Amino acid sequence: MDMSRVRDVRERLVVVGGDAAGMSAASQARRMQGPDELEIVAFERGHFTSYSACGIPYWVGGDVEERDRLIARTPQEHRDRGIDLRLRTEVVAIDVDRQRVRARDLDSGDESWTSYDKLVIATGARPIRPDMPGVDAEGVHGVQTLDDGQALIDTLARTRGRRAVVVGAGYIGVEMAEALIKRGYEVTVVNRGREPMSTLDPDMGRLVHRAMEGLGITMVNDTEVTKVLTGEDGRVRAVVTEDAEYPADVVVLGVGVRPETSLAKAAGLPLGGHGGLLTDLGMRVRGHENIWAGGDCVEVLDLVSGQERHIPLGTHANKHGQIIGMNVGGGYATFPGVVGTAVSKVCDLEIARTGLREKDARRVGLQFESVTIESTSRAGYYPGASPMTVKMLAERRTGRLLGVQIVGREGAGKRVDIAAVALTAGMTVERMTALDLGYAPPFSPVWDPVLVAARKAAAKVRAS
Amino acid sequence: MDMSRVRDVRERLVVVGGDAAGMSAASQARRMQGPDELEIVAFERGHFTSYSACGIPYWVGGDVEERDRLIARTPQEHRDRGIDLRLRTEVVAIDVDRQRVRARDLDSGDESWTSYDKLVIATGARPIRPDMPGVDAEGVHGVQTLDDGQALIDTLARTRGRRAVVVGAGYIGVEMAEALIKRGYEVTVVNRGREPMSTLDPDMGRLVHRAMEGLGITMVNDTEVTKVLTGEDGRVRAVVTEDAEYPADVVVLGVGVRPETSLAKAAGLPLGGHGGLLTDLGMRVRGHENIWAGGDCVEVLDLVSGQERHIPLGTHANKHGQIIGMNVGGGYATFPGVVGTAVSKVCDLEIARTGLREKDARRVGLQFESVTIESTSRAGYYPGASPMTVKMLAERRTGRLLGVQIVGREGAGKRVDIAAVALTAGMTVERMTALDLGYAPPFSPVWDPVLVAARKAAAKVRAS
Repeated sequence: MDMSRVRDVRERLVVVGGDAAGMSAASQARRMQGPDELEIVAFERGHFTSYSACGIPYWVGGDVEERDRLIARTPQEHRDRGIDLRLRTEVVAIDVDRQRVRARDLDSGDESWTSYDKLVIATGARPIRPDMPGVDAEGVHGVQTLDDGQALIDTLARTRGRRAVVVGAGYIGVEMAEALIKRGYEVTVVNRGREPMSTLDPDMGRLVHRAMEGLGITMVNDTEVTKVLTGEDGRVRAVVTEDAEYPADVVVLGVGVRPETSLAKAAGLPLGGHGGLLTDLGMRVRGHENIWAGGDCVEVLDLVSGQERHIPLGTHANKHGQIIGMNVGGGYATFPGVVGTAVSKVCDLEIARTGLREKDARRVGLQFESVTIESTSRAGYYPGASPMTVKMLAERRTGRLLGVQIVGREGAGKRVDIAAVALTAGMTVERMTALDLGYAPPFSPVWDPVLVAARKAAAKVRAS
Repeated sequence: MDMSRVRDVRERLVVVGGDAAGMSAASQARRMQGPDELEIVAFERGHFTSYSACGIPYWVGGDVEERDRLIARTPQEHRDRGIDLRLRTEVVAIDVDRQRVRARDLDSGDESWTSYDKLVIATGARPIRPDMPGVDAEGVHGVQTLDDGQALIDTLARTRGRRAVVVGAGYIGVEMAEALIKRGYEVTVVNRGREPMSTLDPDMGRLVHRAMEGLGITMVNDTEVTKVLTGEDGRVRAVVTEDAEYPADVVVLGVGVRPETSLAKAAGLPLGGHGGLLTDLGMRVRGHENIWAGGDCVEVLDLVSGQERHIPLGTHANKHGQIIGMNVGGGYATFPGVVGTAVSKVCDLEIARTGLREKDARRVGLQFESVTIESTSRAGYYPGASPMTVKMLAERRTGRLLGVQIVGREGAGKRVDIAAVALTAGMTVERMTALDLGYAPPFSPVWDPVLVAARKAAAKVRAS
């Protein structure tokens, strides 16, 4: 169906991808402009919209009982707001010159062009599937989308065996390992890196390693998976590495994601070194007045290193969507960049990081001092005080904060926000030692652990 | 004993007051200079050193079992570090011209002069005792020092009745009310203000009010206590207000403190409008090269209002002590000021504030926009997500953050640190909307509640 006949009376916004970034953009644009000013058509190839992919491990693990709890806004809710949402419809081409997209109805196979005045690309990321024999076997699952999560849960429901192998030990891998432990599986995590959580320096990842072993998870580090073995029924039977073979009734792939930009690439839109779309501060695709992009398919500016990165994270996607919607709707908003904050949880272990790791700092030519301190989440005498480790990096000479990593128990993780704001403001660790942070015995020792780290870092910078 | 005979070989530092600020200063000075360079004499009129006065309510309430758990460093530990500590010895005069202090041994009554090269005044604060009949009756307690706490615990142990009245509903009053509830008392809190926690705006204090009532505490607001009635045994029997009489077996005074600066005043040292000593950025008493002061006896610069305030809080006292010790010992450190951060807890309710309240902003001539939002501590679908209320003030036109108040459950309170750092950096609420804060379902909704408040505040600033 060619919808261009309505173009005379109002503009049309086309949104490609119906998850966090795309539907936030659509919703915000709708708040800015009513249906008489702006028609909004959104294409989504899956069955769901606006869901929390970050919540999938908790759904699999049983902390969240129903899939629908992960859905922030249903397709019907979007339609009720005047967004023409087409589910199970995949955009297969973008024609930038003629301002139109070609979409395929995945059920009927029908394809047609839809023209746009403004376009939002929010195609997300695709999980990396290691290129090895057996990776497509039954029982091998990614967990990127709600459809993926449902498929895994269906598999778990009909699998009799109780041996699971998780490939990869980043956020998803670690969270899925916990989820599977909760479901009563024997879990082995096979990890290419020296330690789990490669978003931390290895000395901090080591703390996560120990905690995972404490949960009964078998961690195999420094190892590459070479193939997946299948049984006669075509189902996964084992995961093979360079050194060993791990029996598996189910395999979860958590080896990371790449920006899903094949459409954008084919359309000649500008991609960065990580394969993500490049945008300006208003999330407009560089060089294209009427095309915006956000979420897991774009690269973002790292304010600490000054370089572009690819950070697939729901909180960024939502911010991008908001900003795009404001700009599409005639307002003004910018996304200044990120500092690389992330938090995660494995049972009662809280893991957080922001800014640069040692190797990030080296790569961009920054010299630094690094300190690690042990403290507690509350005053030592207060019930429930638990140990936490804080690592802090500061630039040599200037003392500018470069990064913080935290591993601890309850109350540890969100302390990373102190450092996230300090990084955003370009604070020195010396300045941080005087920060007026909330203190009372149930919340913190009299010197908050972040201040203890800042004091030690400041002393080291002074002495260097 | 005149100790001036040793002045030829080394300098002498005299410290007046042996709690957080004084002993931190002494310890840090000792780290900077050994006993052959610097003699350190510290006078403390009580029995204890370096303790957590903030922990007293938790000791009274039974969360902390032993008094000694509140002591960070014992007198013997200080002595072992080469600090000549004189307990139960009160300084009764400072002779600035002749660089000496007169001290009285509280047990023997003996007095003598001790000369100093450098002096640290850390005399703390004294609780306000309402000037009314009966206030000195047996069973009426302040909770400022560890000695006070011990006296209250002794009273509770021998009191048969179970009715307690707390006068004042600030941090101490509220925490003591909870402690007494935990000990099985019927608790009435009599409060002069419109709502408890006058460090919050009344609309936020109202939330605390409701929570306290939910705990079974009787809150009486807008009421002045006029006298304390005693029985024939001389013990407290009731608290009388303008309107009513509240039977009481024990009374706790939590009506606040004033800087303890009578010595400093008599010595002609400069005091500010709140009665606290005035210092420079290095915590040196203004106009006095060799005298420093810190902790609850000084005024601090409020970086948001640009005015001096009196904020008695252990975390500031410790920072002051560190900075004084550095400077006394020949190093360099400054205390830039505070933003007025405080957190507190009543059972599972967390209460936090930083920056200016509405009335503070008005008093210093700032026009502002104010917003209040409701959100949750975790992703809505994640177990344990609990509601929290965030109020945010931003300056009109500029959008500069002026203050944040938070009332919620687990995970709410320390979020105030985000705002504390943003205030310190002078951020606008618009800038805050893009902060890269830690997000994962167990820690936060995809938009952290502080970001939700910042978005609403930014929209209001734009619209104004």
